[in-house]
Amino acid sequence: MSRKSRSKRTAHKRGLPPESLVYTGHRKEAPATIHAVLYNDATFESIDQFVDIQADKTLWLDIRNLSDTNLIAKTGEIFHIHPLALEDVLNTQQRAKLEEFDNGLFFIVPHLKIDPDNLEFESEQISFFAGKNFIISFQEDPDDSFEQVRKRLEEGLGKIRKKSADYLMYAMLDTIVDGYYGVMDTLEHEVMSIEESLHTNGVHQLAKAKIFKLKRLLSEVKHRILPLREAVTRYYRSDSDIIDQSNRLYFRDLVDHVAQILDSLDSERDMLANMEAFYQAEAANKLNHVMRFLTIISTIFIPLSFIAGIYGMNFDNMPELHTQSGYFILLGVMFAVMVGMLGWFRHKKWI
Amino acid sequence: MSRKSRSKRTAHKRGLPPESLVYTGHRKEAPATIHAVLYNDATFESIDQFVDIQADKTLWLDIRNLSDTNLIAKTGEIFHIHPLALEDVLNTQQRAKLEEFDNGLFFIVPHLKIDPDNLEFESEQISFFAGKNFIISFQEDPDDSFEQVRKRLEEGLGKIRKKSADYLMYAMLDTIVDGYYGVMDTLEHEVMSIEESLHTNGVHQLAKAKIFKLKRLLSEVKHRILPLREAVTRYYRSDSDIIDQSNRLYFRDLVDHVAQILDSLDSERDMLANMEAFYQAEAANKLNHVMRFLTIISTIFIPLSFIAGIYGMNFDNMPELHTQSGYFILLGVMFAVMVGMLGWFRHKKWI
Amino acid sequence: MSRKSRSKRTAHKRGLPPESLVYTGHRKEAPATIHAVLYNDATFESIDQFVDIQADKTLWLDIRNLSDTNLIAKTGEIFHIHPLALEDVLNTQQRAKLEEFDNGLFFIVPHLKIDPDNLEFESEQISFFAGKNFIISFQEDPDDSFEQVRKRLEEGLGKIRKKSADYLMYAMLDTIVDGYYGVMDTLEHEVMSIEESLHTNGVHQLAKAKIFKLKRLLSEVKHRILPLREAVTRYYRSDSDIIDQSNRLYFRDLVDHVAQILDSLDSERDMLANMEAFYQAEAANKLNHVMRFLTIISTIFIPLSFIAGIYGMNFDNMPELHTQSGYFILLGVMFAVMVGMLGWFRHKKWI
Amino acid sequence: MSRKSRSKRTAHKRGLPPESLVYTGHRKEAPATIHAVLYNDATFESIDQFVDIQADKTLWLDIRNLSDTNLIAKTGEIFHIHPLALEDVLNTQQRAKLEEFDNGLFFIVPHLKIDPDNLEFESEQISFFAGKNFIISFQEDPDDSFEQVRKRLEEGLGKIRKKSADYLMYAMLDTIVDGYYGVMDTLEHEVMSIEESLHTNGVHQLAKAKIFKLKRLLSEVKHRILPLREAVTRYYRSDSDIIDQSNRLYFRDLVDHVAQILDSLDSERDMLANMEAFYQAEAANKLNHVMRFLTIISTIFIPLSFIAGIYGMNFDNMPELHTQSGYFILLGVMFAVMVGMLGWFRHKKWI
Amino acid sequence: MSRKSRSKRTAHKRGLPPESLVYTGHRKEAPATIHAVLYNDATFESIDQFVDIQADKTLWLDIRNLSDTNLIAKTGEIFHIHPLALEDVLNTQQRAKLEEFDNGLFFIVPHLKIDPDNLEFESEQISFFAGKNFIISFQEDPDDSFEQVRKRLEEGLGKIRKKSADYLMYAMLDTIVDGYYGVMDTLEHEVMSIEESLHTNGVHQLAKAKIFKLKRLLSEVKHRILPLREAVTRYYRSDSDIIDQSNRLYFRDLVDHVAQILDSLDSERDMLANMEAFYQAEAANKLNHVMRFLTIISTIFIPLSFIAGIYGMNFDNMPELHTQSGYFILLGVMFAVMVGMLGWFRHKKWI
Repeated sequence: MSRKSRSKRTAHKRGLPPESLVYTGHRKEAPATIHAVLYNDATFESIDQFVDIQADKTLWLDIRNLSDTNLIAKTGEIFHIHPLALEDVLNTQQRAKLEEFDNGLFFIVPHLKIDPDNLEFESEQISFFAGKNFIISFQEDPDDSFEQVRKRLEEGLGKIRKKSADYLMYAMLDTIVDGYYGVMDTLEHEVMSIEESLHTNGVHQLAKAKIFKLKRLLSEVKHRILPLREAVTRYYRSDSDIIDQSNRLYFRDLVDHVAQILDSLDSERDMLANMEAFYQAEAANKLNHVMRFLTIISTIFIPLSFIAGIYGMNFDNMPELHTQSGYFILLGVMFAVMVGMLGWFRHKKWI
Repeated sequence: MSRKSRSKRTAHKRGLPPESLVYTGHRKEAPATIHAVLYNDATFESIDQFVDIQADKTLWLDIRNLSDTNLIAKTGEIFHIHPLALEDVLNTQQRAKLEEFDNGLFFIVPHLKIDPDNLEFESEQISFFAGKNFIISFQEDPDDSFEQVRKRLEEGLGKIRKKSADYLMYAMLDTIVDGYYGVMDTLEHEVMSIEESLHTNGVHQLAKAKIFKLKRLLSEVKHRILPLREAVTRYYRSDSDIIDQSNRLYFRDLVDHVAQILDSLDSERDMLANMEAFYQAEAANKLNHVMRFLTIISTIFIPLSFIAGIYGMNFDNMPELHTQSGYFILLGVMFAVMVGMLGWFRHKKWI
Repeated sequence: MSRKSRSKRTAHKRGLPPESLVYTGHRKEAPATIHAVLYNDATFESIDQFVDIQADKTLWLDIRNLSDTNLIAKTGEIFHIHPLALEDVLNTQQRAKLEEFDNGLFFIVPHLKIDPDNLEFESEQISFFAGKNFIISFQEDPDDSFEQVRKRLEEGLGKIRKKSADYLMYAMLDTIVDGYYGVMDTLEHEVMSIEESLHTNGVHQLAKAKIFKLKRLLSEVKHRILPLREAVTRYYRSDSDIIDQSNRLYFRDLVDHVAQILDSLDSERDMLANMEAFYQAEAANKLNHVMRFLTIISTIFIPLSFIAGIYGMNFDNMPELHTQSGYFILLGVMFAVMVGMLGWFRHKKWI
Repeated sequence: MSRKSRSKRTAHKRGLPPESLVYTGHRKEAPATIHAVLYNDATFESIDQFVDIQADKTLWLDIRNLSDTNLIAKTGEIFHIHPLALEDVLNTQQRAKLEEFDNGLFFIVPHLKIDPDNLEFESEQISFFAGKNFIISFQEDPDDSFEQVRKRLEEGLGKIRKKSADYLMYAMLDTIVDGYYGVMDTLEHEVMSIEESLHTNGVHQLAKAKIFKLKRLLSEVKHRILPLREAVTRYYRSDSDIIDQSNRLYFRDLVDHVAQILDSLDSERDMLANMEAFYQAEAANKLNHVMRFLTIISTIFIPLSFIAGIYGMNFDNMPELHTQSGYFILLGVMFAVMVGMLGWFRHKKWI
Repeated sequence: MSRKSRSKRTAHKRGLPPESLVYTGHRKEAPATIHAVLYNDATFESIDQFVDIQADKTLWLDIRNLSDTNLIAKTGEIFHIHPLALEDVLNTQQRAKLEEFDNGLFFIVPHLKIDPDNLEFESEQISFFAGKNFIISFQEDPDDSFEQVRKRLEEGLGKIRKKSADYLMYAMLDTIVDGYYGVMDTLEHEVMSIEESLHTNGVHQLAKAKIFKLKRLLSEVKHRILPLREAVTRYYRSDSDIIDQSNRLYFRDLVDHVAQILDSLDSERDMLANMEAFYQAEAANKLNHVMRFLTIISTIFIPLSFIAGIYGMNFDNMPELHTQSGYFILLGVMFAVMVGMLGWFRHKKWI
């Protein structure tokens, strides 16, 4: 389940000295793999091991699956990544953040995916360490989230190979933020389908359960994305010399996309809150109808039954019983009472 | 329906490299059209094709219907509009924003319209690229939203032809903001009509459905206009040399109008929340009345029926049955019980 | 009704070019009047027409009733008031604001009045244009809101004639803010009277209706006064040379008064929210009582009636019917059942 | 009652020119008294009349009971207190505030007391005017709130006589803030006692009434103390030369205490809101139980009564009535129905 | 109980002059103990009494159990701790805070523990005074909260002995913050277990009670940790020369952890609020079901009983009674009515 490891150091981590490298996630099946790419405008090389930084090329080192802590430690040593950053790489389910170190920027971003069928929601932690001329990405999952980016690099599509390392960074972040749009699409689609079902089928159990499930999902997604806005904004405003001035516009665009997603989230939350209130009002309304119906039936027949009960008594001396038309008169009276009652209910707008 | 394309990249857009030009809206019937206007204090020309910028004249280039992405790309090339801005022009249903580029300001504003009959609400995205001496406007719809402005330009009414390009920008934004006042008028009118109907007809289904519909509409309108406040304020405060110092007052006025509309929106929301609470209290009140009525009827007749049931039993030895006046005494007792009960209910203020 | 023209440009205004002078209010019976006052420490003149600014005297020009747009336009021309400010003077039901122009400060303040009998609430827009040595006030209503100030000027009471024009401005604003205290007094009095009635008479329809009415009134008053705080604060902090340094303390005092009124408003809103919750809890409580009573009566008599029904059956062979004391034994059993039930209800604390 | 004069100018004050001295409180029995204290490290003098400021001594002038406006006016004249400050001294039930004047600091603080028995809450306004070398305190009540401070001064306890006038100011403010702790203790005690009673006695009327009373009290106390935080913070940060640098730490401590009290207030409000929700859930729960009980009893006996009613009919030809064991079979059937129903209810977990 | 001494000066403290040293906690069994540690990269000494500061070593003085106020006073004298700080050391249940003094930083942090079995929550106040080269820690409890840190010091694990005193400070704060993760784990586990039980067992009393208990716990924990964020942030940003520039990253990491815990707290609160709403909707739903069932049963049998009652009357002249098949026809009619009713309820989707 997605919630199991939400935002905490697991028990075996606590009590250790700070900066201890312990992987707290639960994706351990596959071994860690290294994917290095060296490129500039003219060349493109792909090597599956550690590669040295080269002055005239951009290096993208991609490490997938974090269970091999030694590999992470070794990466840290080679590229001089601060132990606290390394600790955060392994300590998955962190909130999104940007941290500036002397020799680079450290970025943590959650990669969100949602299964449209059962609405199970998954968060993969992706960390970046961006230095002069190189970017190291750490993906929690063994499968590649940046296939599209890799392809564009390899085939030299767009301007990605003409630009410096921070444009690569932007391309990868853009891919992740695109994924958020996908999550939002799924959630918006669900919200709309509930709304329609509320209007066609009326209030029913299923709608209620789904409203609550979606409220929870939206709340979780929001808690994930909210810190990202601050992180991206700080990246965009950072005066680190790692960021090329000409690429700032791209990061501003990213800030804008995240803001737009958060806007949509709030909008959907409003929608759901509105639906919930509608559901409650509708349920209360239904109870009112049921009670009114009970009251009408009871109020008509309880007095009539009483009258019938009177003439069912066995007193010796009940003169009415012995009249020729007493029974028929009584039936008439009962009918009149019933009609009168119905008229009165109509007058009170109960029927 | 207006909600279908709310604030998202559609599926065919995701996965493409950034800066790809894909139109995400759904208004494709008519072909794109170009409307150029060149004017200064003395002259006015209207040409339906691309026109070069001229030092002594202001150029307003208006492009309507965005389905022809090649035309948009070509416009971008001619006027050096940044690819990210072009992408946003086509990516409709964006939030309002202002972005400064080296060679101009880029403005996205939603143009809101509401159908007063069925309260269907529509949002057309209008983008502006304002450079030195020229303004390019991109309208999503094929019909002209700026007819009034065009007329004033053509006939030289007011000071519009005496002022620089940014006053034209102001005139167009003012037209759009005027449209918001129209939307607010419609919504305020609806809110007031519900309020009146609540006070005259009491609580009814229709009112409830309308309260929820209006809450949703207000929430959507607010989500559209809120980012505009920030955008207009930033325009007003921008130190770009494209903005003429003497025209700043006009933009301050615009900021003020947007703030006033948002104020009204909040005020209407308060109103609706208050009505919703009133509706609920009233419904609970009605349930109370119904239950009290049921209780009174039941409490009076259930015991009386029991008494009648007693004397309807067939025991051989029931002395009361054989007395001369037993029946009449019992009727008296029943009547006394009924009166006593009614008195007690009156005492408890239930009737 | 006060709500009719709340915060909007009316329909005939929309579509016009900006800066068009159209009066949007609805007070048109009386003709506009001009009241000019020229004074310094030694002299006081009152003239009912336009007067020129004089270096050694302070000019207060008061224009009442705004239906004559030509007069407003003429005033604007004589005193060089910016067209946007003039537009706002006529466009009543604006939010409070302060705008700085090159030649003066423009202030819009709502003057609130409330009728204590029917709680009808009225807002008159008063605008000020304060320049070096002169103040022009525009009152929407034909009657004078500043009679007291005029008297103090005429009789030379206090230091008002010894001080510069901005002290006059302060005196007028103080009069308006004093009016807010009056509105608050009325509302507080109403809130307290509901509270008392809730504690003495319990929950009743009237209280509920009044709670909702007051909630609405407080919300409206708050929406009016809230923007004023910002406006007065900006006046107090403005570095315009129109404001005499020695008079700043008075404006700080004004800021303080507005803050205090907003505090009171919040306090009253809390009070009403608390009462509303109390009302609801009380109503739920009452329903509980009614239902419990119904349940007790039903639970006692429905089983007893069933027993009586059994012995009212006409089977040939029902041995109990033919015993000598069957009837009396049954009555005893019924009585025992009733007492047992009552004991059980008492045990469950239902009675 | 404490609420009567909450935060407003009373009616006789409105309409007067600003800076008029009118006492708006209601404590008029005793005459105003003056208590002057002159001290330095070595000496201590106590005189009950006006005293001149002396360069080498600190003067504390304490004026109690504010009904004598002439005395206040005279004090203002002697010590050059600004008329606006004097107005605020007399205009009781002000919000806490700090105002800087050229010749001193003006401080208004509410002194809160609560009667633990009936939870009646009282607010006395205490004002301070702190100049170089002297402090003037205005107490609304005739009894001394600063007895402890006076004693410490007289007996030379602690460092109070070694420090400058602003330490005296601190000592007095600390006394007042200590009083807030007392109010909080009383309220916390009440909140805890309700909580305990809710858990032992369940939901009852008394608890509800007390929850609402406490919510109101907490709201009132918060409205009083909230502005004080800002005032004390501004004092602490003020660069007035009246404040001795070495004493700033004490004012920082005061800021901290006020923040802590506001924290506690919020915490208690959360507590009460939680209890209120608990109360409501519990009441709804109780209603559910009652209704379920009614439903069970009704559902069992209404059909059985119907069956008995059938065999109570007087048709000539009802074969069952004439069988030997019909009655007993029917009793058996009825018993079986009852048992079946009970089983079904148990299955549905209603009993 | 944990709540008893929440955030207040106890009664015996009020009324005393400021800076009086009175211990307000309730842990008095054990005598106070002193644990001094002197270390540098090469050496480690542990002495159980006061030790002088040495230029080339770091001194950590740990004082446990605060009941001996003389010892605290003596510590203050030796290390020149400001009396206000000492007062706060003893005045337990303070909010977290950082205060800068001339000769050091004073830090108050709550150490939270929770008993996972009965969810009893305890807060121990730990204070630090950090000067150049030394740290003094005051633990309210006699048992050591920093055993792990002491061990790492003693055994020279990690870089703790290579770094200056503020790294020790960090190590201790990190230990406390780790404890918060533990509290969060317990609370998250409880929230998840309620959620599961809600989905498997449906709505029940126990769940409700636990939801309210957890809401209260989360609220208390939040009130404790919230001020810590500000304190740690101010530490991180402080320009005091006590903080080694190279260690700032560690404190930034701490800020991040506290923010993450607060995030989790908010997330859990959302969760609980969602569950509470679900619980209420579910309970209302259940009531609806019960009422509908009652209504169905009553509506079917009350009219049928009435018909039976009619034919149980004893009128002499009731022709139907004497027909051969009247009884059977009536039974048929009754059956038809019953079936009709059921069909109608089905049509209305009540069954």
